[in-house]
Amino acid sequence: MGDLLTSELARIAQEIDSRFDVLLTPPDDSRRTLYEAMRHAAIGGGKRLRPLLVCAAARLFAVDPECALRTALAVEAIHVYSLVHDDLPAMDDDDMRRGRPTVHKAFDEATAILVGDAFQAMAFEILAAPATHSDPFVRAELVTALAVASGPAGMVGGQAMDMAAAAVMHDLGTVSRLQQLKTGALIAFSIEAGAILGRNPPEGRTRLRAFAHDLGLAFQIADDLLDAEGDPAAMGKAAGKDDAAGKATFVSLLGIDRARAQAQSLSRQAIEHLGNFGREADLLREIADYAVDRDR
Amino acid sequence: MGDLLTSELARIAQEIDSRFDVLLTPPDDSRRTLYEAMRHAAIGGGKRLRPLLVCAAARLFAVDPECALRTALAVEAIHVYSLVHDDLPAMDDDDMRRGRPTVHKAFDEATAILVGDAFQAMAFEILAAPATHSDPFVRAELVTALAVASGPAGMVGGQAMDMAAAAVMHDLGTVSRLQQLKTGALIAFSIEAGAILGRNPPEGRTRLRAFAHDLGLAFQIADDLLDAEGDPAAMGKAAGKDDAAGKATFVSLLGIDRARAQAQSLSRQAIEHLGNFGREADLLREIADYAVDRDR
Repeated sequence: MGDLLTSELARIAQEIDSRFDVLLTPPDDSRRTLYEAMRHAAIGGGKRLRPLLVCAAARLFAVDPECALRTALAVEAIHVYSLVHDDLPAMDDDDMRRGRPTVHKAFDEATAILVGDAFQAMAFEILAAPATHSDPFVRAELVTALAVASGPAGMVGGQAMDMAAAAVMHDLGTVSRLQQLKTGALIAFSIEAGAILGRNPPEGRTRLRAFAHDLGLAFQIADDLLDAEGDPAAMGKAAGKDDAAGKATFVSLLGIDRARAQAQSLSRQAIEHLGNFGREADLLREIADYAVDRDR
Repeated sequence: MGDLLTSELARIAQEIDSRFDVLLTPPDDSRRTLYEAMRHAAIGGGKRLRPLLVCAAARLFAVDPECALRTALAVEAIHVYSLVHDDLPAMDDDDMRRGRPTVHKAFDEATAILVGDAFQAMAFEILAAPATHSDPFVRAELVTALAVASGPAGMVGGQAMDMAAAAVMHDLGTVSRLQQLKTGALIAFSIEAGAILGRNPPEGRTRLRAFAHDLGLAFQIADDLLDAEGDPAAMGKAAGKDDAAGKATFVSLLGIDRARAQAQSLSRQAIEHLGNFGREADLLREIADYAVDRDR
């Protein structure tokens, strides 16, 4: 991992933790359990890759770091909600996440459902607040883009495809499409948010979108490789789940060697899309390297 | 029920159904089940009281009916998501809703979780779109207000208090506070949205807020009375659930007669808050009457 990336990952993790800590101060009534479960889910864990992508992309457009950090927090709120709901017994039924019991294990299922619901509302509350950007047009555009990326045309749609997938044998095209919705859409939003915050017009975002597309796919293939080969202790969650569930993944369809080659090729290709940018894109370049060369 | 209310309820029900019908056109991929479950949950049922409140309040400020209807659709999307999640086995465990099987009964639990998640994202997508209001400041304010009303400081917080309530004996103050969050916040948003859409400044909304507060409470007491005395066939869901669960409600705390008197007094009080408005507030007045005199 590059020096720049190492220090930026540590800085963003600390920022996200301390902001969730303030936002999630438990109230003095019977909602206390809900807030404690939200803290359990959100504070002190996770790679914080999506928040880092928001901040890294925002640099390209000289965005005020405070605006970028608030947007990063909203994206992480959506990501945390999706993990809590995906871990539920009716979904992927996972007991461990980020090295600790999942929310429905540490608390109960009702609380886990409500934790996810609350984080989704909180994400949009953060984006729409004046502190996120002085221009309300920018705030409304962020809300639209995040709602599309996380709703039925994005993340939730991808998870629905994933739940349906157990019954069907999938080919590479279908798995790519599923992952593009399930994880790619939120990664793409994280990067596009930098352009939205910087008032970069949609027609100028072609290269950035190409970068996001290739990075998202590379990241997911690397995830499948970790599930097949990774160390559960380093990952903080179970491995081998996909294989046990008989799920078609990039690894089951391509084999380990071709999957790894494909991930590395996509990562290089992603970096090439940034050719026109200068040093301000170095952090995005290091992230693209790291996406395919990590142990969790 | 007054003539104005009868015709407006029929009109809004048709508008909400036809808009959900368009929005929820199933895609030609494995998300089809998700969309079919969303249609099952959202189309052809429900009183559509919250959408009607949005449109009725918007009349006070001469808001473009199209803007009001889009906002009404967003509120109903949040309401539908909350019903689908509240009905889950881990929450209130209900089999029937709006006269048909609940989503997790007609489909499965994973689908019901995703249906709720998708409707929440869709609500914010609708509000933030330019078609909802030409002024992005208004759209951002709508998003903020709905996110607060439906998140941990509102509806989700109220549901969390309700889940915690089974363990504790509650007094009237606690039950009022719980219901203010669980159902009152979204009802209050529905009414305040009219003022937001009409660019009525926050300091001018005192009477409207008082109306919303009293109406929300009256509506909830009437709901408790229906649960205690109502006809499951007319309601389209089970009755007697609160009593069976040993939950403290307005009826268990006040008794049937005092609860009914309290609901009617709150309804009259709500109408008095509208004193300064003219005929344009007649629909809101009829809704306040109806809220405490309905069979479902």
